[in-house]
Amino acid sequence: MRPNEACAAMDPQAFFWRVMAGELPPPRAVQTLGGRIVRVDAEAGIVETTFQAPDAFANPMGHVQGGFLAAMLDDTLGPALAATLARGQFAPTLQLTVTFLRSARIGLLHGTGRVLRRGREVCHLAGELRQDGEVVASALATALVRQAGPRQAAS
Amino acid sequence: MRPNEACAAMDPQAFFWRVMAGELPPPRAVQTLGGRIVRVDAEAGIVETTFQAPDAFANPMGHVQGGFLAAMLDDTLGPALAATLARGQFAPTLQLTVTFLRSARIGLLHGTGRVLRRGREVCHLAGELRQDGEVVASALATALVRQAGPRQAAS
Repeated sequence: MRPNEACAAMDPQAFFWRVMAGELPPPRAVQTLGGRIVRVDAEAGIVETTFQAPDAFANPMGHVQGGFLAAMLDDTLGPALAATLARGQFAPTLQLTVTFLRSARIGLLHGTGRVLRRGREVCHLAGELRQDGEVVASALATALVRQAGPRQAAS
Repeated sequence: MRPNEACAAMDPQAFFWRVMAGELPPPRAVQTLGGRIVRVDAEAGIVETTFQAPDAFANPMGHVQGGFLAAMLDDTLGPALAATLARGQFAPTLQLTVTFLRSARIGLLHGTGRVLRRGREVCHLAGELRQDGEVVASALATALVRQAGPRQAAS
């Protein structure tokens, strides 16, 4: 099921798929979050991720600071859309809302990101982070598909 | 001006003020974000922060990944409320909405956090991140004042 008719065909030359193929390194931010993409269904607009939260992400209670959960969700919802982009396109997040349901321990987290609606430009995304099978945080985001300028396309 | 009658008097034994006094180290998450609190007005419910975003926070475009801006905003809005807490209280964020207005370069960012309403339990917070004087992201959050359990209060 395609989330929308505007969903681009999977483009192996797009940044996302070149990273998945190991031709380009993952973004620094993803490495910092200990993030990996473990499953992609571009047609369905779904990705599954994992993150390894280190002690460096701890809040005063010793749990993962909520902002880092937000960063993990941003790097889960974003790839669900990135998998549908063509070469030279990018899709900055315009707004991200995160709801914190439970505290998360330092360690492994599992993310699921979904494209709710893939417009030609405006896209709506949703997802969750789980730990030990329980949802610890959920998110909604709006993103905008843009064409990279010459300088950006070259990178 | 106090944001609300329920605003607690500044408690020098509260976690926030012990960190400010150098008696306790800042939370790991704050250190990871290169964060510092540069001004606090607990009566007005306002804090000002700075963050040093390293290359490790870069997205594929080389800008600061939005999720890390969310983490910085969480660590700007949270302290505005934390400055009003008594010893043994903590205030987890229930929901955080971040609006991304401009891309942020790797480097220095300035944050402002405000308590919009300090209820006895439910608190509403707002703030912005600026770079070179321009707002790059704004946030709204809801937090809940809780009493730490014996194990948590001991830490």
